[in-house]
Amino acid sequence: MRGRGDTSVDRVQVVREYWKAVEARDWQRAWASLHPDFVATWPVTRERFSRQEFIKVNEEYPGEWHIHVDRVHALGEEVVSVVTVTAGPQWFCAVSFFEFEGLLVTKAKEYWADGVEPPDWRKGLGERG
Amino acid sequence: MRGRGDTSVDRVQVVREYWKAVEARDWQRAWASLHPDFVATWPVTRERFSRQEFIKVNEEYPGEWHIHVDRVHALGEEVVSVVTVTAGPQWFCAVSFFEFEGLLVTKAKEYWADGVEPPDWRKGLGERG
Repeated sequence: MRGRGDTSVDRVQVVREYWKAVEARDWQRAWASLHPDFVATWPVTRERFSRQEFIKVNEEYPGEWHIHVDRVHALGEEVVSVVTVTAGPQWFCAVSFFEFEGLLVTKAKEYWADGVEPPDWRKGLGERG
Repeated sequence: MRGRGDTSVDRVQVVREYWKAVEARDWQRAWASLHPDFVATWPVTRERFSRQEFIKVNEEYPGEWHIHVDRVHALGEEVVSVVTVTAGPQWFCAVSFFEFEGLLVTKAKEYWADGVEPPDWRKGLGERG
């Protein structure tokens, strides 16, 4: 018998392995963690992807990108991760909320942001770094 | 005597009240929740703000923006919130991780993203909405 605590730990591990597989372009391993009815939503661009569309988007994502996993935590029944992606001089941040059925991801709500320079009105107001 | 559970609940409440105060432009109430040594980091633009700088940035943030709080959760000792900001036809998403000393916020790591259209290469690949 397994308690909820174990499931949380396992789900965190699923997400860690997912990001590792994506970084390795080991697509078969990455997509194995997605439930057949998986849906992804990207609120920043107001996009929604089925499992098949999500796979296509990820496999076709252009550029020589590399993923650095900043943090992964259980958040109740969900898992939240923060990753930084670099692609040459560009950077991207993504905060992802994953929902599960068992150990398969049913939903991913991902806040993807392209790294950008601060707008003119606040240049010099904070520190960069 | 108060357990850690109570502190979590109170910290979630602090964050809810913070966003409510910011939306109301009730700056005095908003900044009362920030520790004197408060530091904010915005990884998307690689900016870092002291308490005083953060206050200035927020008070000067242009536009007729309105905040909708999507979710606020305790995450261990931290609190994570997701908000959507609208300003006319524009939208912004922010996922914020707050650290505390007692019930004062010492650190905010905020992933602010400007709402944008999907890039050309994946237009029509998912659904919009």
